[in-house]
Amino acid sequence: MAMRIGVIGYGYWGPNLLRNFVQLEDCFVAAVADGDPKKLETAKKFYPWIEAFSSGETLIEKGNVDAVVIATPISTHYPLAKAALSKGKHVLIEKPMAMTSKQAAELIALSKSSGKTLMVDHTFVYSGAVQMIRKLIDSGEFGDIYYYDSVRVNLGLFQHDVNVLWDLAPHDLSVMLYLIDKQPESLCAIGAKPVHTNGWNLESIAYAVVRFPKETIAHFHVNWLSPVKVRRTLIGGAKKMIVYDHLDPDNQIKIFDKGVDFSSKQQLDGALLQYRTGSMFAPKIDQSEALLAVCRHFVDCAKSGKPPITGGHFGLSVVRLLELAQESMDHDGKNIKIEEPFYADARK
Amino acid sequence: MAMRIGVIGYGYWGPNLLRNFVQLEDCFVAAVADGDPKKLETAKKFYPWIEAFSSGETLIEKGNVDAVVIATPISTHYPLAKAALSKGKHVLIEKPMAMTSKQAAELIALSKSSGKTLMVDHTFVYSGAVQMIRKLIDSGEFGDIYYYDSVRVNLGLFQHDVNVLWDLAPHDLSVMLYLIDKQPESLCAIGAKPVHTNGWNLESIAYAVVRFPKETIAHFHVNWLSPVKVRRTLIGGAKKMIVYDHLDPDNQIKIFDKGVDFSSKQQLDGALLQYRTGSMFAPKIDQSEALLAVCRHFVDCAKSGKPPITGGHFGLSVVRLLELAQESMDHDGKNIKIEEPFYADARK
Amino acid sequence: MAMRIGVIGYGYWGPNLLRNFVQLEDCFVAAVADGDPKKLETAKKFYPWIEAFSSGETLIEKGNVDAVVIATPISTHYPLAKAALSKGKHVLIEKPMAMTSKQAAELIALSKSSGKTLMVDHTFVYSGAVQMIRKLIDSGEFGDIYYYDSVRVNLGLFQHDVNVLWDLAPHDLSVMLYLIDKQPESLCAIGAKPVHTNGWNLESIAYAVVRFPKETIAHFHVNWLSPVKVRRTLIGGAKKMIVYDHLDPDNQIKIFDKGVDFSSKQQLDGALLQYRTGSMFAPKIDQSEALLAVCRHFVDCAKSGKPPITGGHFGLSVVRLLELAQESMDHDGKNIKIEEPFYADARK
Amino acid sequence: MAMRIGVIGYGYWGPNLLRNFVQLEDCFVAAVADGDPKKLETAKKFYPWIEAFSSGETLIEKGNVDAVVIATPISTHYPLAKAALSKGKHVLIEKPMAMTSKQAAELIALSKSSGKTLMVDHTFVYSGAVQMIRKLIDSGEFGDIYYYDSVRVNLGLFQHDVNVLWDLAPHDLSVMLYLIDKQPESLCAIGAKPVHTNGWNLESIAYAVVRFPKETIAHFHVNWLSPVKVRRTLIGGAKKMIVYDHLDPDNQIKIFDKGVDFSSKQQLDGALLQYRTGSMFAPKIDQSEALLAVCRHFVDCAKSGKPPITGGHFGLSVVRLLELAQESMDHDGKNIKIEEPFYADARK
Repeated sequence: MAMRIGVIGYGYWGPNLLRNFVQLEDCFVAAVADGDPKKLETAKKFYPWIEAFSSGETLIEKGNVDAVVIATPISTHYPLAKAALSKGKHVLIEKPMAMTSKQAAELIALSKSSGKTLMVDHTFVYSGAVQMIRKLIDSGEFGDIYYYDSVRVNLGLFQHDVNVLWDLAPHDLSVMLYLIDKQPESLCAIGAKPVHTNGWNLESIAYAVVRFPKETIAHFHVNWLSPVKVRRTLIGGAKKMIVYDHLDPDNQIKIFDKGVDFSSKQQLDGALLQYRTGSMFAPKIDQSEALLAVCRHFVDCAKSGKPPITGGHFGLSVVRLLELAQESMDHDGKNIKIEEPFYADARK
Repeated sequence: MAMRIGVIGYGYWGPNLLRNFVQLEDCFVAAVADGDPKKLETAKKFYPWIEAFSSGETLIEKGNVDAVVIATPISTHYPLAKAALSKGKHVLIEKPMAMTSKQAAELIALSKSSGKTLMVDHTFVYSGAVQMIRKLIDSGEFGDIYYYDSVRVNLGLFQHDVNVLWDLAPHDLSVMLYLIDKQPESLCAIGAKPVHTNGWNLESIAYAVVRFPKETIAHFHVNWLSPVKVRRTLIGGAKKMIVYDHLDPDNQIKIFDKGVDFSSKQQLDGALLQYRTGSMFAPKIDQSEALLAVCRHFVDCAKSGKPPITGGHFGLSVVRLLELAQESMDHDGKNIKIEEPFYADARK
Repeated sequence: MAMRIGVIGYGYWGPNLLRNFVQLEDCFVAAVADGDPKKLETAKKFYPWIEAFSSGETLIEKGNVDAVVIATPISTHYPLAKAALSKGKHVLIEKPMAMTSKQAAELIALSKSSGKTLMVDHTFVYSGAVQMIRKLIDSGEFGDIYYYDSVRVNLGLFQHDVNVLWDLAPHDLSVMLYLIDKQPESLCAIGAKPVHTNGWNLESIAYAVVRFPKETIAHFHVNWLSPVKVRRTLIGGAKKMIVYDHLDPDNQIKIFDKGVDFSSKQQLDGALLQYRTGSMFAPKIDQSEALLAVCRHFVDCAKSGKPPITGGHFGLSVVRLLELAQESMDHDGKNIKIEEPFYADARK
Repeated sequence: MAMRIGVIGYGYWGPNLLRNFVQLEDCFVAAVADGDPKKLETAKKFYPWIEAFSSGETLIEKGNVDAVVIATPISTHYPLAKAALSKGKHVLIEKPMAMTSKQAAELIALSKSSGKTLMVDHTFVYSGAVQMIRKLIDSGEFGDIYYYDSVRVNLGLFQHDVNVLWDLAPHDLSVMLYLIDKQPESLCAIGAKPVHTNGWNLESIAYAVVRFPKETIAHFHVNWLSPVKVRRTLIGGAKKMIVYDHLDPDNQIKIFDKGVDFSSKQQLDGALLQYRTGSMFAPKIDQSEALLAVCRHFVDCAKSGKPPITGGHFGLSVVRLLELAQESMDHDGKNIKIEEPFYADARK
């Protein structure tokens, strides 16, 4: 029987979720909720059959649905997800999962006790590009990961309620978490608030570093004040190197056959290492919409009971990294040791 | 009368210095020194009149020169410059000026007491691109600088004696120092050493942050392990934004007519600020060799006694920032307050 | 009163036309026609109020509409437009207007006698980029046009009924016609059919040249067999030069301050001319959908009776150029003089 | 014993030839000739041992050399090469080989009768990029060549004595000749002279088409009036497609795994063919200087007597194509059948 789904929030991302869920065979988009009557009207225009609710709470309470998708402002993720799980609904939450790791942990516990699926929509993890990089790393052809360097900058809308770190970094942190199979050791972050106005005073530029064993380092640059849009990640390995440029649809992933060799005894003038620089390969990437894969995976997991790739622990790990990065930013970039065990669970 | 010049070090950069100095009218390249007889032979082949010395010390001691140009490994900058200034020679030193700020300060003092010119070859400062950005900032059209973000990465030769920070960051720190007319407040840096071999164990990746008053932030990414070569600096201002891409000769500087406006009372859904996004302008940049401008400026300053743009205090400031960044890297990226007064002198 | 519109053809382009017409205030999309019941169903799903017809002829015959939009295969343009004009409907036709210039001329006559608007959807003419180039040329700042060189290549779907020239070149010919205010003098074209299959044997690569007085030359390269997608036009003028790259949304138009000066008496070694190479300017381009401007312009013209920018004569001119190019292709690229007077009418 | 070489012409290309010949082991650059005493002085400064002559004729007459390299204006190629071959010297001529195919044929005959090597410096043929493309084609992996489309445009110096076709097209014609192993069937060309001044009136824009059996087509665009520099060739094959961009040093050749399949019976809406679009591969290209390979090959051929890759017949073929293209340009682009047999010899 088709799983009945209700979507809470029909603002920026909600319409995309509906558009994808309606394409799936084994589910039925039964309900939508939004506080804005105009948005509900638009939703009903496109999906005349849909039951409309003026609040997420009412949808959870009264909606005839098996699963709830939460696409509302971050601050409401936790109460809505809690209510939905308590009512025995499966839950898919937009990233980031919650405002605090404590909230995230509670939701994990609730999901466990209710036996319902809890999943976070970290869309990029499901993209053809990231899936292919993961395969390359798993194959051993890439070698040890030396570094992960991501840049996500653009002239973006300033958000009322979150700074640039909470707005943009969840994408990159989730991809990093999916690709680097190590327990992070420490973290630090620096932010800046060059722009502020009456009352509003949040970071619009941030840099964060996550460190792993064996000197593996990940670095993140997020920025709402860049004149150009950049979505580029460099990943350096012992055997290959990758440039992942999300905005270059023809060559999203370039794999360079470049690596480092230690030079033998007789060393060149000043040079310690020799480089093997070789060919470049841009594999064909599945360009189908990642969000469709997210929706399909959610329905699969809810029906089968198998754990989602970006389940509760994955979402919690991202939230925890954001939380620690914020703490570091608030203390002049102080270095914070990471001792939580749940990162290991995140990749299970 | 033509100023007589001796160049110490005919390795990587020395030949470029010679090639440029011989083009100047009011100076004469009289001598060269290098420990390697083969290199001296090459130098004499191109400049048959030149007097060759097997060491910098001998050149300083016996060479009939008014000025000495030091293009040797960093560790030798200080003793050679000290000897040259003591012998009453003008001195041009390759970047970075010295291994420690203490050494740099001593050289400044020596230059003052001897009345001889002391200048550091921070070549990029003299490039058409950087000169044009400075003019734009000075004109007031750019507005307050919000951030300075530079990336200088490539698959580079590992150096025996310096890490990636000391090798690559002097370029970017010098440009930042030239463009941002504020006293830096604090600094932190993080490095990683994923590659190491018998005995050698230096940073091949580094990130550094320098903070200024009013939340102005500068960030640096230097990396010897990138599959692609990037030399790109984003500079965000209140009125304009710049992309400075050294590798795009046709459009080294792109000036974006983009800025940020606070939205008025009625605010759009979630949006706090409105962006003015406008046209882009890529001014024609003087592409003549920056090093020629360096050489000419050195000769001018030595002859006239006027202070060089990148004189002793400028060189010292760069060394001090490197020193502090190293200290921060050695202590897990700890934040270091900057209280030295000499940054102000650097721009005099 | 809102003008009532019927759209014939709900295949590739029809849905885009509907989507844009429904956004306009002073018109009402009343009817749609398509031979495929599934497509009608989809149309009705999105626009539940719409009256659906199983053929264009029926829609014209029975539909309660003031205007008809024809988005069907080329071969049907003429009979449908003829029927519609005869029934006193305004007509907007997809490009190219008809299969022959004779058909096009008939439609012009019919439009004149019926007093109804006849317009061709040459979308690109209405784009922000082309409008801006036209303004620049009209201002006199561009100087005489020396050449117009367009490349439109990609790995495209081979069409059953038309070759690459008739499929792709209408875009470029219409833009050329809109920008170069001169009577074309002659034309030639070359095509190649490297790919063919049972029965099908049409050109998949074509080059065409249109010549104007004073040695102004226009050249077109259309190709269905390119591994990369290129949409790039170079326009050289006596004072400025333009690169118009449709696929570079951030810099669709780059205006180069480059021109040619005759060198004075003492001429450089081998060089006859000196170049002024200067700055580049990428103006902000209106990125709103050109098709919306097309639809709005059609409604305006139909209501007010004013002649459309891309009216019958414009459409005829494009068809005539295609016809002549085909004739030239069929005769090994022979040069064909152009003596028709209607190109002048095209820009009225 | 080292072959003794004399270079005639020390203008733009001559210095590059000398610089490369001096690097070869088995030859000795013994003499140089130029009408300009200043240039001879410069040559002697760099190569103090060299014997300088004030004219090519004198060098040929009196110089103690085994081979002569001719890097002078085109009009002098023939008389100088004739004199040199008559004196029993091996000859390397800059492209294009001569002003007429008759001259070129005479030189071939002279080379045969004297038993001396005659070679033309078509440098690009020896580049790593072109060599790799040739290998790919020879391997059969590329499939039949469908088309060859080259663009070589820039804001270039206008030449006094040659038009843009003779200046730029020799590069592309030689590469085409080297890559496409078929007898050309016909040719046509169109030029334009939008710029002219007192007396000077040559083409500054030209397009040429060369046709081969089985609908293989080659097209050339050369232009001195482009605001941007483009050096890009698309090569379409039945199995692969190549983008060869000379200005992209990191990815000079991109090989696309794209091809065309005829669709089976059930054909998609309007689509006749299906495309296999796949991955892209950018092989590492040997970036050593092609001119060094030219010089080495010339010395090898002269010593061993083996025929050069770009020998007399190759050079003649290029000249003949230029001649025919000029004839076509002079007659409004008329199509010219090619019946000469020597194209087959060109690849021997």
